[in-house]
Amino acid sequence: MAVYTDITDAELAGFLADYDVGAPLSFKGVAEGVENSNFMVETDRGRYFLTVYERRVNATDLPFFLGLMQWLAAHGYPTAAPIPDRDGAILKSIRDKPAALVAFLPGLSTRRPTVAHCREAGEGLGWLHQAATGFAMRRVNTLGQTAWASYFAPLSAEADALKPGLATTIKADIALLQSGWPDDLPQGVVHADFFPDNVFFIDGRFAGAIDFYFAAWDMLAYDVAVAVNAWCFEADGSFNLTSARAFLDGYGRRRTLSAAERAALPILAHGAALRFFLTRLHDWRATPPGSLVRPKDPLEYERKLAVHRAGLPGFGT
Amino acid sequence: MAVYTDITDAELAGFLADYDVGAPLSFKGVAEGVENSNFMVETDRGRYFLTVYERRVNATDLPFFLGLMQWLAAHGYPTAAPIPDRDGAILKSIRDKPAALVAFLPGLSTRRPTVAHCREAGEGLGWLHQAATGFAMRRVNTLGQTAWASYFAPLSAEADALKPGLATTIKADIALLQSGWPDDLPQGVVHADFFPDNVFFIDGRFAGAIDFYFAAWDMLAYDVAVAVNAWCFEADGSFNLTSARAFLDGYGRRRTLSAAERAALPILAHGAALRFFLTRLHDWRATPPGSLVRPKDPLEYERKLAVHRAGLPGFGT
Repeated sequence: MAVYTDITDAELAGFLADYDVGAPLSFKGVAEGVENSNFMVETDRGRYFLTVYERRVNATDLPFFLGLMQWLAAHGYPTAAPIPDRDGAILKSIRDKPAALVAFLPGLSTRRPTVAHCREAGEGLGWLHQAATGFAMRRVNTLGQTAWASYFAPLSAEADALKPGLATTIKADIALLQSGWPDDLPQGVVHADFFPDNVFFIDGRFAGAIDFYFAAWDMLAYDVAVAVNAWCFEADGSFNLTSARAFLDGYGRRRTLSAAERAALPILAHGAALRFFLTRLHDWRATPPGSLVRPKDPLEYERKLAVHRAGLPGFGT
Repeated sequence: MAVYTDITDAELAGFLADYDVGAPLSFKGVAEGVENSNFMVETDRGRYFLTVYERRVNATDLPFFLGLMQWLAAHGYPTAAPIPDRDGAILKSIRDKPAALVAFLPGLSTRRPTVAHCREAGEGLGWLHQAATGFAMRRVNTLGQTAWASYFAPLSAEADALKPGLATTIKADIALLQSGWPDDLPQGVVHADFFPDNVFFIDGRFAGAIDFYFAAWDMLAYDVAVAVNAWCFEADGSFNLTSARAFLDGYGRRRTLSAAERAALPILAHGAALRFFLTRLHDWRATPPGSLVRPKDPLEYERKLAVHRAGLPGFGT
């Protein structure tokens, strides 16, 4: 959580002058997002979020991310719709950094998802896949399966430092996933980071999803697997099969998973756990001690990997 | 800017259940305040700020601070009114830390005050002094003139480290202020931290003041002096007499400064500069390098002290 870019009242007024959104009434930096600076802006016309893109997000990907958010909002999906300026532009800049104004999306994220939350979240993801159908832009999933071996190569010593012998285990995961990875499942736009902190609820019902800055083109069932890893494990590392089935049940209200997709879920979830383990391992190494942002523990995902290595009877079937 | 206390959706719901404010619709940590954690809470009834008191603020002072905010709001002064729970309590706790729910106050603070801002801010401070009249609670200004000598004693080596010979200069300031400090000026409740980041504007007009966590009982003209130091110096360290006169002019719309108060302003402003120099020097020393919160530069206030040592012809007269 951080605000990296400091914006003065005068700069804000200059930025908003390009938009037809009224005059600012309040402006607060929000302690949310580690890659971007986020601000809540209230005007006499409504409430907005101003995001300044700081790091990790590749500026050339922003038209895809913002275009997707605009498409989803236009197709009735509850998300933070980008606000066009008077010339129709949705990608702007402030302090020489890329920036966008988006609609404020109400809702609360949950820290400890219940089975009921998982069912609602599953429906939210199925709805997303349904609503994104027809979006014409493409973005390769740069953190997809084909990238894992080369992503891990420079991190193998770090893995062993975390837990002796782990590098060998991870290499075996990568080989196993490479040989068994499906290539014939339905593809589409995936959120790729559909974690509890990116999903909002109101009164226990799904109220919207945000943070599309990992979205890409990949297998839709892989997106389900990423989300199940994030939503359906208990704090002690155990897999909650009831939550996972509720998630799939909710998903099915909006989009039907084929038999082949369901059968592939265990290997997809194994791969999804590896993907988050790898980036957390990378961030763990890259973050100096005492830094502003505390990296997430890679071992949380190594524990999930261990569960997937042992197999998940009953998941997906 | 920081959020030290992490509050889950379940904890928030439990906290709000004591209040008659409706159910939460959104909840965001705000990157504001170095002593407290602040959250914006929206419910179906309105918008609120939840403050969790972390450090520096002495818990035994909170009834004074919150009582003052409540008094001011009840007397029509635009500030963040504490919201009583169903039993009438305004000081509550969350995660075993003191906490309060206050009304959301719209407005934007300014980073570069113009002469017009100074006039409006002056009126806001005069209005505050007027509105606080009759508030019965008392709090000693623990950072007032009588505290400076003992506050500085352990910091003298640090002053010399900042600038060789500075300790001797500061000791001379303290002695001079002690002998010349007025003791017969009107007293009352002072904000004591009426800086630009604590004052809100809408459309260029004063819209309210927040952050009463240094408020105390002291000379009202001392509060004016603190504010003039904060509002009427240029970034290059020069004193803007036009801004200062505008501030006093605005103040005079709400409360008349006596001739004795005006005559005392130069020495009060000298003392006010010393008070902020001292706490900044303390925080500078106390903050480890690379810390989350970057301390404010004490030399900014040493430059203001130098201006006051040279005298301010025309200020207050």
